[in-house]
Amino acid sequence: MSELKEFCLKSETVFQGKILEVKLDQVKLKNGRTSSREVVLHPGAVGIIPFVNEAEIVLVRQYRYPVREELLEIPAGKLDPGESAESCAIRELEEETGYKAEKLNYLGSIYTSPGFSSEVIHIYWAEQLDFTRANPDPDEILETVTIDFEKAVKMCLDNKIKDAKTVVALIKMWLERGR
Amino acid sequence: MSELKEFCLKSETVFQGKILEVKLDQVKLKNGRTSSREVVLHPGAVGIIPFVNEAEIVLVRQYRYPVREELLEIPAGKLDPGESAESCAIRELEEETGYKAEKLNYLGSIYTSPGFSSEVIHIYWAEQLDFTRANPDPDEILETVTIDFEKAVKMCLDNKIKDAKTVVALIKMWLERGR
Repeated sequence: MSELKEFCLKSETVFQGKILEVKLDQVKLKNGRTSSREVVLHPGAVGIIPFVNEAEIVLVRQYRYPVREELLEIPAGKLDPGESAESCAIRELEEETGYKAEKLNYLGSIYTSPGFSSEVIHIYWAEQLDFTRANPDPDEILETVTIDFEKAVKMCLDNKIKDAKTVVALIKMWLERGR
Repeated sequence: MSELKEFCLKSETVFQGKILEVKLDQVKLKNGRTSSREVVLHPGAVGIIPFVNEAEIVLVRQYRYPVREELLEIPAGKLDPGESAESCAIRELEEETGYKAEKLNYLGSIYTSPGFSSEVIHIYWAEQLDFTRANPDPDEILETVTIDFEKAVKMCLDNKIKDAKTVVALIKMWLERGR
């Protein structure tokens, strides 16, 4: 494999929000040229497929303002500073759905938009769930939906579920089960 | 389905780069509260699985500065203003790989990070390819890799390919072929 690495010459924060930090970096390319890179820094996130029984999972429906659409997604959330992906998965699942997972299984990780964002999402499936109480962020209005797993997979294949992490998670899980 | 829509009260551009525009909006939630939303505006993009023959596809390897890693991905690129997704797919495929597609087939669309970005990627697979000449953007250093399709699918399942659009595209394609 050749080395295509780009080296940072200069880095400037051009926006610091509550959620996003945007950097404008100058980089040196392998061909000697310099170029600029606009980067959205992201702390990383997790997504979880919660199986309430062998056949059914819990998804969340929420309005996603950036795309102006209500989407059906697996429960997910951002890592707190210093938090492990597994702890975050258990915390976010309980906050969003009220289910506390006894067992987590790793399915893989994805970069959602590696051209402009550092976001990585670690994907798990969870089993042995105990219902406690949902406690969503007050700025996040969610509805939980219990749905047949096979039906949700079909919705991914039919382009009715369009959130990337959810499509990856459900289709990988489906293939994993069938292997 | 309930109505979870959020209404924009105020919108401000907080960063305008060459690639990204970042907005800070104030929104009214369904519960009456107001909240802020940090949004990366994106023009939309396409990704293409180019089949050079029945068994092999072309992927591109490039250094993705935001995640500081070389990734193997399907050819992809952003829509120009007013450009249709199909025209963009044909143009980007030829620019990045040198292959001109005679036939495009739609596989579906994904939102890559709907929590903070408006990016949507329309995914196609292409066949009947004629090699002309690659003409990549001078700021984008790419290597093309011709690879067995089944091997690339296995790399997705084994978490060796981690770019979200590529995982969705290859696994959906694989299931589509098998259906």
